[in-house]
Amino acid sequence: MSQSSNLTNLTTLLERGVVEIFPDSETDNLGDRIQKSDRPLRIKLGIDPTRPDLHLGHTVALRKLRQFQDAGHKAVLIIGDFTAQIGDPTGRSEARPRLTPEEVAYNAETYLEQAKKILDFSSDRFELRRNGEWLNKLDLQQIITLQASMTVGQMLAKEGFSDRYEKGTPIYLHEFLYPLLQGYDSVAIDADVELGGTDQKFNILVGRDLQLKDKNRQGQPAQFGLLLPLLVGLDGVQKMSKSLGNYVGLTDEPLSMYSKLEKVPDALVDKYFELLTDIDLATLPQNPREKQKQLALAIVGQYHSPEAALQAQQDAEQIVLAGNTADLGDIPEFDLSQINFPAPLRYLVKAAGLCKSNSEAQSQIENGAVKLDGEKLGDRTFAEASELSGKVLQVGKKKFLRLL
Amino acid sequence: MSQSSNLTNLTTLLERGVVEIFPDSETDNLGDRIQKSDRPLRIKLGIDPTRPDLHLGHTVALRKLRQFQDAGHKAVLIIGDFTAQIGDPTGRSEARPRLTPEEVAYNAETYLEQAKKILDFSSDRFELRRNGEWLNKLDLQQIITLQASMTVGQMLAKEGFSDRYEKGTPIYLHEFLYPLLQGYDSVAIDADVELGGTDQKFNILVGRDLQLKDKNRQGQPAQFGLLLPLLVGLDGVQKMSKSLGNYVGLTDEPLSMYSKLEKVPDALVDKYFELLTDIDLATLPQNPREKQKQLALAIVGQYHSPEAALQAQQDAEQIVLAGNTADLGDIPEFDLSQINFPAPLRYLVKAAGLCKSNSEAQSQIENGAVKLDGEKLGDRTFAEASELSGKVLQVGKKKFLRLL
Repeated sequence: MSQSSNLTNLTTLLERGVVEIFPDSETDNLGDRIQKSDRPLRIKLGIDPTRPDLHLGHTVALRKLRQFQDAGHKAVLIIGDFTAQIGDPTGRSEARPRLTPEEVAYNAETYLEQAKKILDFSSDRFELRRNGEWLNKLDLQQIITLQASMTVGQMLAKEGFSDRYEKGTPIYLHEFLYPLLQGYDSVAIDADVELGGTDQKFNILVGRDLQLKDKNRQGQPAQFGLLLPLLVGLDGVQKMSKSLGNYVGLTDEPLSMYSKLEKVPDALVDKYFELLTDIDLATLPQNPREKQKQLALAIVGQYHSPEAALQAQQDAEQIVLAGNTADLGDIPEFDLSQINFPAPLRYLVKAAGLCKSNSEAQSQIENGAVKLDGEKLGDRTFAEASELSGKVLQVGKKKFLRLL
Repeated sequence: MSQSSNLTNLTTLLERGVVEIFPDSETDNLGDRIQKSDRPLRIKLGIDPTRPDLHLGHTVALRKLRQFQDAGHKAVLIIGDFTAQIGDPTGRSEARPRLTPEEVAYNAETYLEQAKKILDFSSDRFELRRNGEWLNKLDLQQIITLQASMTVGQMLAKEGFSDRYEKGTPIYLHEFLYPLLQGYDSVAIDADVELGGTDQKFNILVGRDLQLKDKNRQGQPAQFGLLLPLLVGLDGVQKMSKSLGNYVGLTDEPLSMYSKLEKVPDALVDKYFELLTDIDLATLPQNPREKQKQLALAIVGQYHSPEAALQAQQDAEQIVLAGNTADLGDIPEFDLSQINFPAPLRYLVKAAGLCKSNSEAQSQIENGAVKLDGEKLGDRTFAEASELSGKVLQVGKKKFLRLL
């Protein structure tokens, strides 16, 4: 394989799932920069440790960063320990509460533990920085220079700010600092590429602008922006977010992770493969159910292990058979208030309509075909409804009832 | 005289010419604060040394500050050496150019030399501060706290900013810092009263607000604002300003100062007495011309000496008689291109129509009634027009011509 086709493959991988790379002109594009650079590029990803728990939505950019590492470049992960105290106002409908330094430190620690599952932390491929390192040293003079580089009109034109201004929702002056400080991070670490969600375009452009204006850089080219999609959550509609409950957390147990992922809406499955795995999309199974299972197996395998993933799959199937999944909303329900307690099991099975007669019920019980929450049950008598309430009563493989 | 009537007189003097004092409620007013305070109050005046030359417009606040000094309080004059590098955007239709530290230092020196003509610089009555002293020490954290205290909407509602925003004239982000930094000066020097023009109300209120929010002040009362009118310039219409040319500079020569002031529009004379002198307004002459002269004498006397003022008055009268004032716009003109040079004086006087015949001209010259720019002239011959161009030729007390 020639060097240039290697490069093509590489660029193809680096561009997988990417929404936009800028600039992208004939004379100024990332492919050329990669090819012509005599050193590894410095790929910036800034993270805002306002939330201690990562979910798959966070991994889209982290995985892209890992792909750059694998291609020989250097990941520069910036913990926004300083900026977290402001909070990125991007896309927010109101000002964020400011975090204390202790909260930020705790969140950053947790974040890094989880990021280790994705990034290569070897020292030649990875640089960890905290932006307090340079932002705490800025004096008023430098801050004025930063602020003088932009106008109120440019800021208010930014999505989010414009909505809030029009609605009369307060925008505090320090929120205008956020894009400038994120931009200054690019100057401070000398970024060649900055990764971010599509909602980060403005902030990344500010970084380019500040790099171009910075006198110490002596006309070095400014960073490229590489924009990634915001991952849609399990509801198939909104951006994945902990507060919306439509997320898969990186610290989720294998079974919980698997169960959520095998039910990803069909419309999202290909996108999830593209953004959350390295699997060649041409090799995916046609059957939608099989696709979901492969996705769930692959992702659980990444964050736990292939063995844990297989175990989770088995457990999930067992639970589905037992009718005891959190999501079995379509199981018919049976109201226990119709039953006089104490009541024998055979009577219950008959009264609930799962068998036509007491004798059929008796015989199914003896055959081991009657289960409660997946467990075979011999004939016995229940003293009161509370022993059964919420459980799934099953006869054979096809008849289920949730007792309520 | 009892102590309380002393106080009344004092308050009357301190309130002379004042447009507004705030707050001014029954429970919170400056009179009470003065009466109840067991120490001299700290009276803040911030100056922005963006212009090296002071004019009478600047003296309105400086004179008020001196009145507080004379009443036993302490003047705290803040040289905005730091903020001058931003420039107060108040009332500006566009962003100001940022000054270099050298320009600021030069302007501040010049300002102080001139302010000495008005303020008492004795150490027990005067404190000179430069706001770089505390503003240079602010870090980003503190600046964020300052900025978080106000919203974009509050800033954009401010006169000047709102006009610019509506017109689409760029407002640079650092301009929003100015009111906050001026306000922080009040925190830093622990001001009890801040003086300023009526256009400073917003900035002074920001200072009150920051003082109230400052935790180190432990609930001390915040500063009063004392607003003074903007002095209308010699044109009778616009605010006095060097760039509009309608000003009297503090370093103007006595004669120049006198000549400008004796022509102050009648509608402004009382205001000028009120704001620029201590003279009891009840004692002013009725005759408008006499009033103007008294005003000119008084002000030249303040900034030079009573003797210099009298001399300026005499010189000015002499010049008016000689017809050589800068303002004699109604003197008829005579076009020298009608004359063949070289030309004797008597011929010129006749040709210009100031005498009916050469012999009358000759006799007037001999009587000493012919003057050029106020100087008696014997008969002589002029070689070319350039010797005469722009000068006023006068015969007796009533006939004038400007030679062009």
